[in-house]
Amino acid sequence: MSYNLLKGKKGIIFGALDANSIAWKTAERVHEEGGTFVLTNAPVAMRMGQINELAEKTGSQIIPADATSVEDLQNLVEKSMEILGGKIDFVLHSIGMSINVRKGNHYTDQNYAYTQKGTDVSAMSFHKVMQTLYKADAMNEWGSIVGLSYMAAQRVFPDYNDMADNKAYLESVARSFGYYFGKDKKVRVNTISQSPTPTTAGSGVKGFDGFIAYADKMSPLGNATAADCADYTVAMFSDLTKRVTLQNLYNDGGFSNTGVSNEVMEAFIASETKE
Amino acid sequence: MSYNLLKGKKGIIFGALDANSIAWKTAERVHEEGGTFVLTNAPVAMRMGQINELAEKTGSQIIPADATSVEDLQNLVEKSMEILGGKIDFVLHSIGMSINVRKGNHYTDQNYAYTQKGTDVSAMSFHKVMQTLYKADAMNEWGSIVGLSYMAAQRVFPDYNDMADNKAYLESVARSFGYYFGKDKKVRVNTISQSPTPTTAGSGVKGFDGFIAYADKMSPLGNATAADCADYTVAMFSDLTKRVTLQNLYNDGGFSNTGVSNEVMEAFIASETKE
Amino acid sequence: MSYNLLKGKKGIIFGALDANSIAWKTAERVHEEGGTFVLTNAPVAMRMGQINELAEKTGSQIIPADATSVEDLQNLVEKSMEILGGKIDFVLHSIGMSINVRKGNHYTDQNYAYTQKGTDVSAMSFHKVMQTLYKADAMNEWGSIVGLSYMAAQRVFPDYNDMADNKAYLESVARSFGYYFGKDKKVRVNTISQSPTPTTAGSGVKGFDGFIAYADKMSPLGNATAADCADYTVAMFSDLTKRVTLQNLYNDGGFSNTGVSNEVMEAFIASETKE
Amino acid sequence: MSYNLLKGKKGIIFGALDANSIAWKTAERVHEEGGTFVLTNAPVAMRMGQINELAEKTGSQIIPADATSVEDLQNLVEKSMEILGGKIDFVLHSIGMSINVRKGNHYTDQNYAYTQKGTDVSAMSFHKVMQTLYKADAMNEWGSIVGLSYMAAQRVFPDYNDMADNKAYLESVARSFGYYFGKDKKVRVNTISQSPTPTTAGSGVKGFDGFIAYADKMSPLGNATAADCADYTVAMFSDLTKRVTLQNLYNDGGFSNTGVSNEVMEAFIASETKE
Repeated sequence: MSYNLLKGKKGIIFGALDANSIAWKTAERVHEEGGTFVLTNAPVAMRMGQINELAEKTGSQIIPADATSVEDLQNLVEKSMEILGGKIDFVLHSIGMSINVRKGNHYTDQNYAYTQKGTDVSAMSFHKVMQTLYKADAMNEWGSIVGLSYMAAQRVFPDYNDMADNKAYLESVARSFGYYFGKDKKVRVNTISQSPTPTTAGSGVKGFDGFIAYADKMSPLGNATAADCADYTVAMFSDLTKRVTLQNLYNDGGFSNTGVSNEVMEAFIASETKE
Repeated sequence: MSYNLLKGKKGIIFGALDANSIAWKTAERVHEEGGTFVLTNAPVAMRMGQINELAEKTGSQIIPADATSVEDLQNLVEKSMEILGGKIDFVLHSIGMSINVRKGNHYTDQNYAYTQKGTDVSAMSFHKVMQTLYKADAMNEWGSIVGLSYMAAQRVFPDYNDMADNKAYLESVARSFGYYFGKDKKVRVNTISQSPTPTTAGSGVKGFDGFIAYADKMSPLGNATAADCADYTVAMFSDLTKRVTLQNLYNDGGFSNTGVSNEVMEAFIASETKE
Repeated sequence: MSYNLLKGKKGIIFGALDANSIAWKTAERVHEEGGTFVLTNAPVAMRMGQINELAEKTGSQIIPADATSVEDLQNLVEKSMEILGGKIDFVLHSIGMSINVRKGNHYTDQNYAYTQKGTDVSAMSFHKVMQTLYKADAMNEWGSIVGLSYMAAQRVFPDYNDMADNKAYLESVARSFGYYFGKDKKVRVNTISQSPTPTTAGSGVKGFDGFIAYADKMSPLGNATAADCADYTVAMFSDLTKRVTLQNLYNDGGFSNTGVSNEVMEAFIASETKE
Repeated sequence: MSYNLLKGKKGIIFGALDANSIAWKTAERVHEEGGTFVLTNAPVAMRMGQINELAEKTGSQIIPADATSVEDLQNLVEKSMEILGGKIDFVLHSIGMSINVRKGNHYTDQNYAYTQKGTDVSAMSFHKVMQTLYKADAMNEWGSIVGLSYMAAQRVFPDYNDMADNKAYLESVARSFGYYFGKDKKVRVNTISQSPTPTTAGSGVKGFDGFIAYADKMSPLGNATAADCADYTVAMFSDLTKRVTLQNLYNDGGFSNTGVSNEVMEAFIASETKE
């Protein structure tokens, strides 16, 4: 299905690793909607992924970039404008990584070198991407920048560990930079706070399957899928949402505003009475 | 411009009074996007408005309904399904009225008969609309219901008076009913919290022009217009946002997350120093 | 235990029904802290309750008042100032009632006469109380008004029914009236959003015991008790919180900012796997 | 004035620089309320400050500690328990510093080495403090930890620069660590989000005086002072707030929930019409 919502629009998409990635699905949907873009990911992530397949499918070029390196980002922005033939209309930042999670360090027993690295990759990188675009005056007016986030930025999900704090920082960066990008360049900046999604990256988190089932039962419309997120991101890149900015937008089947669902309550009571 | 985003979708649009109305602009945009709909408004409002013109332009029929009357709403829903040839995909609730504001009663000096009437018209009517649709099983799966709101539901804007409390109630109804509409019918319910907009209805509020200028200077992207709201509503009615529900979505150029802008700060200081 | 935090302060306490009431516990704690007050409740509620016992224990007088009746409230305020010998320093509004809940009407099948009555009793009464105090210029500077609320104002708890919408309205009234009470009288207005509490009033809600257990497991510090709420209210009445206003303050062991706890997650998984 | 609210309680207070510091005022109030504590600050800050004066006045000892150094914090916690003769009941974290602000780097032109350093000092230090306390099992049950924050964590205040993002991270750390401190040790963790306050540290921010006047006019009760913050912190350290946790508590005269005040609106209009 295509509405040609992004015809003529040019962008950069960070973070497509494999077909389970939200960024991958988004790239496919953006392509269907007529957008053209450059794909990018960290060199190390690209070795693990199948990004070439996505590039072929969408007629895109790939420019490797470490999103913590300002130099890499400057190169990425410059080359992207060359390849796409002009300024940028949309950017997706879908990057997150916690070494503490990977190493199994509990939130109360962090290795701060890992914490700092995770913040740099997952949160400050969003600032670096925007600062690079801003200084290069690389965004077209009424362009749209989206960062992917998660509700752990607002509420505690124990196993999400230090990624919670990184997402809080990321969402703050969206607001802070969104102010200047709005005032100075008429560009909007938002984050989409997505349901837990069974991506390859997410699957490393302890008990993730159980948590996905829980979130699904808690959400009045069930969990939003990666495909749903791609659709919503297309809407946010399109001209239908030109004055929406500095927002954190929940794409989560209603979880964020549900205190408890009947299903979760029933499961809780069933468990209590069986004990 | 049209993307055919709403091709084949059927709906009901409440609250189009004249060409300044958000509901009017939305009806026009929905029509452009291929949606068909019934227009409705209170009998008294229709006498004041030019709704026939809109009906002709969009090939729509009009069914008068007092949104506080369950009987009127039942008739509206039943007739709409007959006219449109099936169940409903989208509903816009754009209704609000404060008699205390009209009569010039200060927030600290309310006439509670007026307050109660305002709550019935502006807020409980949203529940009545949804309860009528729900009981008649009138919504298609993945349908979308949108109510228009304003940030006074979260923060004090002195002249907004008792409409603030009504909007808070309205947004709560969206969450509460959205839970059941999601679980039972796969229908989403959201509110859009719009910038102050120079509609005919809004123009009655004291000092409204100054406030619109203030909001515009405060918002990084400037005030969202009625046309922007129509676009956003189209996105919320479309299949691009199927798992977004129970949300209050700010369409406000970023005002809601701006503590102060440089322009407003400069105006404040200029005023202080001139005194 | 007493700190003499409220020595010399005078107030009005609404809603003490029996020893399980939050208002009852608060009255006891306020008395311990040296505050003097008038007790009030609806005439019908007083017949059911043991408020005389509380009055004796705390050396208080009782003035019956229907909180939906402006006339009753005017009488209450006037008499209270006579009895207490001056203006008022603190007010507790702990009033809520849903006829739809009592009658077993589902949220999607409301009787709107009941809905309207519930809103009047549970939410508009807070406005009426404050308007009466404001017009009579009955509050001392740096006085404190507290309304009791519940998180259903922000998130859906299915069985809470139309009380959710009433609490959203109540919290909005706190902000709206708090603005004027602050600017004009230097009085603060806040709501305390309390854990589910096993009061006599609350015990009518379906599945309430199970829900209390759930909330307790979800909250990092467990549910706040009525005694905890009394303590917090004392802090809000005291001079320690003079510039805290227009806030909704969660007294809930951390539930409001917990997405899921390990205990609830484990119960959910246990239930899933046992099925 | 003293209520003996903190009699017998022991604590650690970070960040007292001089008599304008919130931490300084808090130390004085805690002392009045019967609490005993250790004062700490970074060695470099202590050279600039008059902390010895405060130590004498309150009968406290000083232990220098760089709050980014886990080693320093371990020493601090260990020594504090020796000096105070047991576990800790309360901790105040009042630490913040942006090198980008000091160096005059605009938010869109950050030096990321400075950004990272600012995050470490202002935000990660809160995690380090809590992790050190947690691992040493140094907190008594029903202890209370407070971090000072600012509303820039939620909304853009342009000149607040990268401190906004640091405060968002700090508040997230309060929630995340508060979950574990609550579940495992029955300790509460909250942040107080304070009005702009004319401290020596704050006075470096561009246009700070004008902003303080603006905030004062916007707030229904005017800006909360450092003394107000000290009072509120005492309430949060006391047994009156035992089940309040994971919260960000605004002490701001109501600014956070005010969209605009009449005074600010009038100043804006006056400025517009004079131009």
